[in-house]
Amino acid sequence: MFTSEHHIRVRYAETDQMDVVYHGNYAQFFEVARAEAIRGLGLTYKNLEELGVIMPVVELQMRFLRPAHYDDLLTIRTILRDLPEDHRIEFHHEVHNEEGRMITTGRIVLYFMDSASQSKCLMPDILRQKLQPFFPITNSGS
Amino acid sequence: MFTSEHHIRVRYAETDQMDVVYHGNYAQFFEVARAEAIRGLGLTYKNLEELGVIMPVVELQMRFLRPAHYDDLLTIRTILRDLPEDHRIEFHHEVHNEEGRMITTGRIVLYFMDSASQSKCLMPDILRQKLQPFFPITNSGS
Amino acid sequence: MFTSEHHIRVRYAETDQMDVVYHGNYAQFFEVARAEAIRGLGLTYKNLEELGVIMPVVELQMRFLRPAHYDDLLTIRTILRDLPEDHRIEFHHEVHNEEGRMITTGRIVLYFMDSASQSKCLMPDILRQKLQPFFPITNSGS
Amino acid sequence: MFTSEHHIRVRYAETDQMDVVYHGNYAQFFEVARAEAIRGLGLTYKNLEELGVIMPVVELQMRFLRPAHYDDLLTIRTILRDLPEDHRIEFHHEVHNEEGRMITTGRIVLYFMDSASQSKCLMPDILRQKLQPFFPITNSGS
Repeated sequence: MFTSEHHIRVRYAETDQMDVVYHGNYAQFFEVARAEAIRGLGLTYKNLEELGVIMPVVELQMRFLRPAHYDDLLTIRTILRDLPEDHRIEFHHEVHNEEGRMITTGRIVLYFMDSASQSKCLMPDILRQKLQPFFPITNSGS
Repeated sequence: MFTSEHHIRVRYAETDQMDVVYHGNYAQFFEVARAEAIRGLGLTYKNLEELGVIMPVVELQMRFLRPAHYDDLLTIRTILRDLPEDHRIEFHHEVHNEEGRMITTGRIVLYFMDSASQSKCLMPDILRQKLQPFFPITNSGS
Repeated sequence: MFTSEHHIRVRYAETDQMDVVYHGNYAQFFEVARAEAIRGLGLTYKNLEELGVIMPVVELQMRFLRPAHYDDLLTIRTILRDLPEDHRIEFHHEVHNEEGRMITTGRIVLYFMDSASQSKCLMPDILRQKLQPFFPITNSGS
Repeated sequence: MFTSEHHIRVRYAETDQMDVVYHGNYAQFFEVARAEAIRGLGLTYKNLEELGVIMPVVELQMRFLRPAHYDDLLTIRTILRDLPEDHRIEFHHEVHNEEGRMITTGRIVLYFMDSASQSKCLMPDILRQKLQPFFPITNSGS
């Protein structure tokens, strides 16, 4: 399993008149947290795009347990439970506030796509090599 | 079943460098479509807030089937399959582009909450009366 | 002089915890109003981009006189006082609320740029022909 | 003069299909930079709101000199040239990219307002005390 944490301070623009973070803005928080997770591996999502791989989002699920407020310093955890085997990659996210309470969870599925041909592709080797150590091969046989 | 349709033109600001609508922005499209669905009933979501009822989003699920592009005129369908029985209301959304192709689907769950007490409440009567005619009571017994 | 009007309904996402439209969001309202002004001429900004012309914003000035609120139906006026003579085009915007009160004004300068060469260019002829009738040539000489 | 610097990493959501940061998003960057400037003084803008003072934006001016791109780490400088004497406060902002090139400048005017009465007020003493040391009283007479 690979996990990473990133902190995001809530902007005024991200609140709405209910005095909480507008629900749609969590998509951005997750995006930033994934980008930082990849940076933590010594790569950047920008690098991947420069290599000709884009990662469109195909599925997003979010549960809002508690509100976040202006100026809150949120902790966004990014979790990769399984090493991708095909063109799909699935991340889980958990958002905690400063009191340590979980306020939002998310699950997001992205595709690896070749930007030139616009067709699905496998996870780039450069990313696989970085992630592999977090997923030791277990000897499941007898 | 209650359904409603609303059109939204994609703004430049809503695109990203992948030349498509940023996935998180669909949350706004759904919000606008729900607001217009309620307006079509002769009410407004603003009215509900003035009556002391707020509707925080507790769950959001989206599937992105095809991209939307700048200046596309999208049709956002809002669907209420069941009349709420408690403090929850669940909408489904479908987004079609001008070629009639479905590009995104969504499911969103909101709570009815009393804004003063910040506690869950039932759907306001004024909204129930407007929605009731779309959900005829069926005689299911013998 | 060329003027055009477009209506925009304020989204929940566009408000902030001050219960008003977040000031930065007016940039989007102006963008939409300009796009609709061009559409009213029988063209689209999208067409211009397809012809290889992009229009980056180089200057934006906004004055906020009164707040706008959720669900307000705003009228955004787009004004072109002068026909562009070089690579610059300058629009003025005025935003009125439903009571007819002016709430925001804006001035924006964009460049015409050739997207291939990334160099400044003149206003495309196709747009000039549409705008010319609004700027009759006045006989200023003797 | 009081100056402060804050770094902001460009989000994917903040780009548009021109492959650059959408111009309207700089308003958010400036907002974040001002909030961090105040935090650097040992206060928060949130504190001020809790004390009953809100700071609506009444004027915003931006010049876009060069584009910013996805994943750029921008430096946002916040400058207060004069200590406010009345209900107005004026900040200047400068945005530099990682190569040290200035890409955007801004000037923003906000009002101090009493949130209860919604009337203009002076800068709160708690903020004045923090800023005063940056503005030594100069003996301009002979």
